[in-house]
Amino acid sequence: MSFGEKPRLTDEECFQKIQEYFYSNGKDININQMFQDDPDRFGKFSSIFHTPRDGDLLVDYSKNKITEPLLQKLLELAKQRGVEQARDLMFRGAKVNQEENKAVLPNVLRDANPNSAHSKNQVIVDNFNVLNDCKDLLEKMFKFVDSVHSGQWTGCDGKPFTDIVVIGQIGLTLASQMATEALPGYRTSLEMHYINNVDGTAMVDVLTKVKRCTTLFVIISENFDDPIVLRNSATAKKWFLKWSSAKDMAQHFVAVTLNKPEAIHFGVLPCNVFRYCEYAAECHSVWGAIGLPLALSLGKENFATFLAGGKHMDDHFKSAPIDTNIPIILAMIGIWYNNFFCAETQAVLPYDPNLRSFPSYVQFLNMKSNGKQYIGLNQSEANFQTSPIVWGGNLEENCQLLHQGTATVPCDFIVSAMPHDGITDQHKTLIAHCISHGEILMKGWPNETRESKNSHPGSGEPSEVPIEDKFQDGNRPSTTIVVKQFTPFTLGALMVLYEHKAFVQSVIWDVDPFVHHSNSLSMSTASEMLASLEDPRKSRLFNSSTNGLMAFIKKRLEIKTLTDLILVSYEFLYDPPVPEILRKGEIFNLAVVVASAYVWFQFVY
Amino acid sequence: MSFGEKPRLTDEECFQKIQEYFYSNGKDININQMFQDDPDRFGKFSSIFHTPRDGDLLVDYSKNKITEPLLQKLLELAKQRGVEQARDLMFRGAKVNQEENKAVLPNVLRDANPNSAHSKNQVIVDNFNVLNDCKDLLEKMFKFVDSVHSGQWTGCDGKPFTDIVVIGQIGLTLASQMATEALPGYRTSLEMHYINNVDGTAMVDVLTKVKRCTTLFVIISENFDDPIVLRNSATAKKWFLKWSSAKDMAQHFVAVTLNKPEAIHFGVLPCNVFRYCEYAAECHSVWGAIGLPLALSLGKENFATFLAGGKHMDDHFKSAPIDTNIPIILAMIGIWYNNFFCAETQAVLPYDPNLRSFPSYVQFLNMKSNGKQYIGLNQSEANFQTSPIVWGGNLEENCQLLHQGTATVPCDFIVSAMPHDGITDQHKTLIAHCISHGEILMKGWPNETRESKNSHPGSGEPSEVPIEDKFQDGNRPSTTIVVKQFTPFTLGALMVLYEHKAFVQSVIWDVDPFVHHSNSLSMSTASEMLASLEDPRKSRLFNSSTNGLMAFIKKRLEIKTLTDLILVSYEFLYDPPVPEILRKGEIFNLAVVVASAYVWFQFVY
Repeated sequence: MSFGEKPRLTDEECFQKIQEYFYSNGKDININQMFQDDPDRFGKFSSIFHTPRDGDLLVDYSKNKITEPLLQKLLELAKQRGVEQARDLMFRGAKVNQEENKAVLPNVLRDANPNSAHSKNQVIVDNFNVLNDCKDLLEKMFKFVDSVHSGQWTGCDGKPFTDIVVIGQIGLTLASQMATEALPGYRTSLEMHYINNVDGTAMVDVLTKVKRCTTLFVIISENFDDPIVLRNSATAKKWFLKWSSAKDMAQHFVAVTLNKPEAIHFGVLPCNVFRYCEYAAECHSVWGAIGLPLALSLGKENFATFLAGGKHMDDHFKSAPIDTNIPIILAMIGIWYNNFFCAETQAVLPYDPNLRSFPSYVQFLNMKSNGKQYIGLNQSEANFQTSPIVWGGNLEENCQLLHQGTATVPCDFIVSAMPHDGITDQHKTLIAHCISHGEILMKGWPNETRESKNSHPGSGEPSEVPIEDKFQDGNRPSTTIVVKQFTPFTLGALMVLYEHKAFVQSVIWDVDPFVHHSNSLSMSTASEMLASLEDPRKSRLFNSSTNGLMAFIKKRLEIKTLTDLILVSYEFLYDPPVPEILRKGEIFNLAVVVASAYVWFQFVY
Repeated sequence: MSFGEKPRLTDEECFQKIQEYFYSNGKDININQMFQDDPDRFGKFSSIFHTPRDGDLLVDYSKNKITEPLLQKLLELAKQRGVEQARDLMFRGAKVNQEENKAVLPNVLRDANPNSAHSKNQVIVDNFNVLNDCKDLLEKMFKFVDSVHSGQWTGCDGKPFTDIVVIGQIGLTLASQMATEALPGYRTSLEMHYINNVDGTAMVDVLTKVKRCTTLFVIISENFDDPIVLRNSATAKKWFLKWSSAKDMAQHFVAVTLNKPEAIHFGVLPCNVFRYCEYAAECHSVWGAIGLPLALSLGKENFATFLAGGKHMDDHFKSAPIDTNIPIILAMIGIWYNNFFCAETQAVLPYDPNLRSFPSYVQFLNMKSNGKQYIGLNQSEANFQTSPIVWGGNLEENCQLLHQGTATVPCDFIVSAMPHDGITDQHKTLIAHCISHGEILMKGWPNETRESKNSHPGSGEPSEVPIEDKFQDGNRPSTTIVVKQFTPFTLGALMVLYEHKAFVQSVIWDVDPFVHHSNSLSMSTASEMLASLEDPRKSRLFNSSTNGLMAFIKKRLEIKTLTDLILVSYEFLYDPPVPEILRKGEIFNLAVVVASAYVWFQFVY
């Protein structure tokens, strides 16, 4: 891709039709005007997602730069690109992860919910009924969760657990952590701690807070080989075994992994190894055994309701006609901004402090799935933009740019009618703020406001400055999603809405959302760098920038021996490789030491 | 601005020169190749920021798409746009906030540090020595902080304070909060709680945790009129007065504001009203009295060191020649990506869990200051892109897109050689991850890796698929900033580095970084909406989308009377305004009630 040229989707006929529309009408669409021209615009461009419990979801996409003919064209594009077929293939268990020749079935996990009426369907992959397999998997997990909550499975001194420490990569724990935070009214008394960072301080902080005898550790790792997870787990194990036996330890450590032997070798009982679900990609990782932390936090019943909410959205995505299919519509509106307006980003703005990690979740889901440059079976280079950069958080922090910046940023507002604690008074203020931002983004900042600002007493001079009519153009798009209340059911549905939206976009762009490569490369490069950091003799492996950074850091890390000191300083100052005589370390020429030390003192101090 | 066309800076000669360079060489610059061609690239494109304490900062910008002639052109542009003059004007106390006719002098606050050698300078604004004024302001604050820490100023029962609850807008507290988190090793034992959200749950959560007699409330509000702050303060006051007298309350509430009478009226003692510093814009708000929470958390000495770190960067920005001036160089590299590659975003990626809020801080600083569409004295519409969208966080979450996505995202890596607790073992892993991402972004993913991936046993089918040579092109730019350790001094310097970078960019784009409008408009629109939410009779004020959202929400909020119920459902179903007979509320026609109820039940259930 040649940078500097903004890529557009122009290589196919169906894209070109939309492109033409973009240049003839689309780019000048005035949302505000359309509301004035059509009093029923809201009715035409909003959907209610009916649910059997916890209230419906309202999805209002009328404040977008869309018209009926455009939406039709976009849905036509979805059809031509085979969105419906791809969806059906995924639900049927086809191997949509082509590179690894795997089916990807997060929906089957939601369908396998042991607490809901058993679906009569079967999902066959390689002559194997995956649905039954998932049912067994979830049932085993539900049983364990129950035994922890009932006090049947306890810590080594027979007391019920009070704390759960989850050790896993961020990708495998983020969704659980986000959902735990989002549902304070549904949590059991178990205190959750998530350790997913390279840095050791988080682990140490947690271990100083929890009590050994009432803490359960959940280790999550696909192959039980992730160096960060292994390191954090080893720290936890060491801490635990300081005062306890290996037998005691078995009551306090469980694992979610595909590598059962390694987990058992670590010290987990065979019955406490839960199978990492290979049917779900990392970015969907909360629905199977990987959701164990969330299930422990919410309890079996609430977790089952969470799955049911997700499944309800699955059913809608699977069966609703394309022109009322919410994930497809939202995905295609996203395509409109991403590939025709060339908006590089998408803002996700939940108006609820409990949903503070929801933007990170959507960010990870989209950018991990669809942030790819090579597309299709041939892995050819995309000549258009794929995944947008998803960002968000508290709008009050960022509103200046969203209202007045030069970038087109489609915004998703998310808000609930009722707060989680049922006290609606202050929550109404929150709602008012949320809705008013969508209104102002669209309407802009009218003339009067600006003038009254200018006639502010004491402003003196500035009023003489000629001022343009408008201060903010408005016509900025937003979508608003309203739930009655965030409950396990509605949160499950909302998460799956975003999941399927990303899936639809992956089909349009022809990226493979289920394959993730970069981690393994960064892991191996990181280990090389670590080796170089730990051994001052290993160095000069990289380019001058990376070498320079490493030398700067090494110099500031502990320097154990005089040899190390000289080596480090030598390397910092000179470009050629360190002479062999210095590399040997033990026997070296005193003259070299003295000379190097002299150079070092002169340059470094 | 016409959306769909990516705006470029092309209206002036100096821009055009760079534009020409962009098309002839710039867009095809290969960073990796340049390292091979020039072994001293790191030396040419990195700077060491020397400090009198806590170690130097290394700023490595060599992994950017820049060459020596380009950097020269960019610095030429900075000169032509008057960056140096603007900087000198700001430091001299000129009224750089033209619209409000105010000087903006965060640097004076840093210079007024009572703990450092008194600067002999004076800064005169309107015949008034601002420097002396700031000294008095900070001295009063330092005295108070000392009296809290020494136990001289205590709670109403004579015990020293244990908790500080800070109530303020997010813009006025974010920097304090970020810095408090970033410096765990330098905090006093005072527990900090920040309440800056509209939602009431945060306030309630904190009040259930703290003890009344040992809690100090700090209210921060420029004019003591912000509805959210007033509401949260009122909740705190009510909670406090439940068991205590107004006299007791005076010992527990302090305020930072310009509206002293209102603060006193609220219940704060006159001696405990600290003047909100009008010389600093909101986005710089940690250096004056607004930094009181941070000063309470760190203690007087550490806060003074923090100011000294900031001042040290001020001095560098003020005096270093343009071609070694770090904030100017980084700002111009940002302009290169923003206005020539048209990169819409900038990623800030601190590799330190304690710096988790640093990206939010930089986001707020940039987007609040420079996220503007109207520029110059005439406030004409910008035909180029102004502030990028700043985002970031943990790279491990987002690396797929950064490594393999289609967008150009300049990345800032930030890392320290030493961790805050001095235990370097696991911290080395963190450093290795940080540096390796910069390396891979630049180098890409070479052929071998991809091939070995394909020959993975059991992959079968996929190996027959024709595969492109590379999987990730690389050539993705990054800047790395290394400090020896995050201390009050180095954090202060780092924050001011980003502050001045944003200032330089504001001069290039000719936006006024110190004026912020949108809040007041969203506040007034939000109050209209709140009124409409609270009174079911007030409605239909907005367009059909906003009305539809409000109706949906109202229906799900408590419905007190049958009249309310019918009104809400009537409004939800029909578009024309509610008949006057229903609006009156008390006397209405029974037939209308019955008919409406019938319609309601039919449609809603």
